[in-house]
Amino acid sequence: MKLTKQDVVARFLPATLAEGAQAEAFAPSNIALCKYWGKRDKELNLPINSSLSVSLAHLGSRTRITPSDDGADHVLLNGEEQPLDSKFAGKVIAFVELFRRELDQPLTIDTHNNIPTAAGLASSASGFAALMLALDKFYDLALEPQLLSAFARMGSGSASRSIYQGFVEWQMGHREDGMDSYAMPLEQSWPELRVGLLKVATGEKKVDSRAGMQRTVETAHLYQSWPLQAAADLEKLTDAIVRRDFELLGSTAEQNALSMHATMIASWPPLLYWQPDSVAAMHQVWQLRADGLPLYFTMDAGPNLKLLFSAEHQQAVCDAFEQLEVVAPFSG
Amino acid sequence: MKLTKQDVVARFLPATLAEGAQAEAFAPSNIALCKYWGKRDKELNLPINSSLSVSLAHLGSRTRITPSDDGADHVLLNGEEQPLDSKFAGKVIAFVELFRRELDQPLTIDTHNNIPTAAGLASSASGFAALMLALDKFYDLALEPQLLSAFARMGSGSASRSIYQGFVEWQMGHREDGMDSYAMPLEQSWPELRVGLLKVATGEKKVDSRAGMQRTVETAHLYQSWPLQAAADLEKLTDAIVRRDFELLGSTAEQNALSMHATMIASWPPLLYWQPDSVAAMHQVWQLRADGLPLYFTMDAGPNLKLLFSAEHQQAVCDAFEQLEVVAPFSG
Repeated sequence: MKLTKQDVVARFLPATLAEGAQAEAFAPSNIALCKYWGKRDKELNLPINSSLSVSLAHLGSRTRITPSDDGADHVLLNGEEQPLDSKFAGKVIAFVELFRRELDQPLTIDTHNNIPTAAGLASSASGFAALMLALDKFYDLALEPQLLSAFARMGSGSASRSIYQGFVEWQMGHREDGMDSYAMPLEQSWPELRVGLLKVATGEKKVDSRAGMQRTVETAHLYQSWPLQAAADLEKLTDAIVRRDFELLGSTAEQNALSMHATMIASWPPLLYWQPDSVAAMHQVWQLRADGLPLYFTMDAGPNLKLLFSAEHQQAVCDAFEQLEVVAPFSG
Repeated sequence: MKLTKQDVVARFLPATLAEGAQAEAFAPSNIALCKYWGKRDKELNLPINSSLSVSLAHLGSRTRITPSDDGADHVLLNGEEQPLDSKFAGKVIAFVELFRRELDQPLTIDTHNNIPTAAGLASSASGFAALMLALDKFYDLALEPQLLSAFARMGSGSASRSIYQGFVEWQMGHREDGMDSYAMPLEQSWPELRVGLLKVATGEKKVDSRAGMQRTVETAHLYQSWPLQAAADLEKLTDAIVRRDFELLGSTAEQNALSMHATMIASWPPLLYWQPDSVAAMHQVWQLRADGLPLYFTMDAGPNLKLLFSAEHQQAVCDAFEQLEVVAPFSG
């Protein structure tokens, strides 16, 4: 019989928890340089490949948990109450239940994202990581980082990486209960590294990442070659980070992202997150690179590009792309 | 030692040929429903996978060969003389030399394409097929269709299929000399089938198909899964043609084309033939299909879409896409 999230989490918690008073936590969004794409276990969000990301410093989710005083749970997103039967509130409450269990304490879960929701900027990653960190404080669990990461993964796979700042590697793990599938921060920093968020579109996606990766795994012949590529790319990225080799970092991240999109494009029905403006921006990056600017991009399951460059080229990049939001992941 | 084109062709020709007087031949362009992508032998244009196409009836190349009266070869394309050191003339003369050899007869090779050159509409396929057919007449060779196809393949791989009208299958073959790698027409016709040529851009490509497929084979991890997919798609297409199952034909052709593009996108440097307008057209096709119109597309190594639909839906398709050039491959 397959393990459920409840089974797995319960092993690491006391039989009952004490009621909490209030807690608040922040978790950064993260941009994968080697993507997570494909699950070997849908219940536990166990990945087919290991991945590597860089967290976005101040951009992310802040979640506050307080006892509710009217006897019912409340879920707020960016200040707006979400109906309990909405997809968003349903996921949040289901995650809270992994910890609350028999405890009869209704809660208000108030989340603020300072990044666009559901536009390929992985707000679910920072959201579930912030929720996990807030739950840890609220129930006074004092869980180890690996456990926080593994539990956050059950909310959203890439949330496992948003537990930390900086470069983060999520090891796929091999255990059936997934408890070796958690992220750890890399010790290296890269103060000059910049991530530029280029917003092509901010609407809700028609097919979310979860459904997208499932379709890819089930219908794209080319997906068969993905796990080996991801493993090779992860090694190249680690090497690039250790040696601070920007061209290796950028080229590996760009090819990895494009290969992930290639597996979607080869799915049926075809899954193309790109908009015409995405393609225009891609051609623009390639032209700038051909003209000598060391500029690369990555993309998640959405139409937006995330540009990768070094601080010394920030002016040139901002001149080429108006309204670019530039993040310095290692600034603080 | 690797076999050269000269070695292979010479085996099937008399030691010397008689001078010719004049000859003219037409060959259709063809649209692959299962694409040729990747070579196992670059000299002989031997493919890694078998492919299947439909020829475009009246659209193609007409080539006329006449003796030149000023002692030098001349190559004309659409009425304009091409310098002998140009890429185009170089390829044409190199192909002619496979047959002319020691014969001291300068020629004028005059080709007219009624399709845009080098814009993903495979003018090299119809061009080399027409040249092969014209050479066969000019030198009075009376070669079997399989030989004409195999020799045309040495000029441009997909030219092997442009020897015929209708549905054509190019068997990859296994022999080192490639003489089992030729195309044969399928017996089935499909009078209601329509191909709509949607021109997104008509400029010369920065990376031609030959260089594109080489880059893909050498750098795209995902290419490893391509040969098996192509084999599976070819079987589905043959089945669709025998049963006149349009949805199976269209969906298989579209996924095959997108998978080929996916292998390019996963290459390094990335190879994206799509323009913003290509992506806009793709989304439009998917929307129309979601709205109930049985419409699919295929794309070659270029930005243009080739729409696939049935005669009964021609008006609806033409209403959606202005300036569509519609071809009825089995009309005459």
